[in-house]
Amino acid sequence: MKQDSAKFIVIEGLEGAGKSSAIALVRDFIEKHNGQAPVCTREPGGTPLAERIRDLVKIADPNDPLCDESECLLIYAARAQLVANVIKPALAQGNWVLGDRHNLSSLAYQGGGRQLMPLVEAVSNATLKDFKPDLTLYLDIDPQLGLQRARDRGALDRIEQQALSFFERARATYLQLAEQDESIVVIDASQTMAQVHKEILAVLQRQDWS
Amino acid sequence: MKQDSAKFIVIEGLEGAGKSSAIALVRDFIEKHNGQAPVCTREPGGTPLAERIRDLVKIADPNDPLCDESECLLIYAARAQLVANVIKPALAQGNWVLGDRHNLSSLAYQGGGRQLMPLVEAVSNATLKDFKPDLTLYLDIDPQLGLQRARDRGALDRIEQQALSFFERARATYLQLAEQDESIVVIDASQTMAQVHKEILAVLQRQDWS
Repeated sequence: MKQDSAKFIVIEGLEGAGKSSAIALVRDFIEKHNGQAPVCTREPGGTPLAERIRDLVKIADPNDPLCDESECLLIYAARAQLVANVIKPALAQGNWVLGDRHNLSSLAYQGGGRQLMPLVEAVSNATLKDFKPDLTLYLDIDPQLGLQRARDRGALDRIEQQALSFFERARATYLQLAEQDESIVVIDASQTMAQVHKEILAVLQRQDWS
Repeated sequence: MKQDSAKFIVIEGLEGAGKSSAIALVRDFIEKHNGQAPVCTREPGGTPLAERIRDLVKIADPNDPLCDESECLLIYAARAQLVANVIKPALAQGNWVLGDRHNLSSLAYQGGGRQLMPLVEAVSNATLKDFKPDLTLYLDIDPQLGLQRARDRGALDRIEQQALSFFERARATYLQLAEQDESIVVIDASQTMAQVHKEILAVLQRQDWS
């Protein structure tokens, strides 16, 4: 059982939205708030098996191209491992968990981007049931700007090489789901990093963490 | 599109039911019938990526035990790969396909054995849709007898080490699904190999392969 005081916070966003620096900021906030750093996870991945699954999702084999359904199922297999073996045990021990992506990424990328929403919803409901983050910070950015930033920092992986329309569908899904769920807060990530961080801290400070 | 003349035949059954020798028999029958051997598949596996997924399902890591949901999702990820990149292309070219296990194994093992039927049915429906074998030969055996045979031939893998009740639930599911689907033929695999093979050939010979 999760201890009520232990929170699961997730950072979400498209490539180039500034997730990494936001994660460092939130990690520091939690450490100051609790006197203890959170358990940090990344998805897909975060357990030995889930990291091996992540490798399968990231590689591109021209002789055996990963089909969209397999991609989706592999990501959920990794997530089930991570939730069962890392996230739930940490919360049960009273530790906070800070996630670099979680289920909302699958809804946006595989559901919206790949247009596999019926499969994503079926698997999400059947595996996670009512388990969800206490707070998700979604860093919203225009995909053209985000991809330009991602390109500037180096090579793009298989998913980052998708067409712009894929990311536009993913962004539209992120925004649509954020509108329906109070626990998802949208941050305008086109602002300067200082402005983004100020907004994130304001969100964290006004939460009722009891 | 599948060519009507190309058939997808699957051999199913618990450990020790005699699948391997049945597969060899059916393979020979198809080769004689068509003048050409079928494309043979095994599940989970059968593509480079699906074989890597199979390895993840077969290993047992005490520090990161495979949870039942992940097992199920990995098997379906491998299946989606195999269907998209091997089975459907083969049938589209007019080749017959002979499968060592297919979706019925997941319904029996993960749905019945692991008691995850809602997840299995959701994923099965969302990924395979109306794709299914033309004929499935289910080799029915009492799990105690089957596991004894499997033990006699060597070490048991992670799934083969499940409790007897797991295999009893899987068998009950096999039999229940066979009753509801005319394309699944139950063969009594407790008979001698000669009797089993005679029955299989009789089933194959009375099929309308047009």
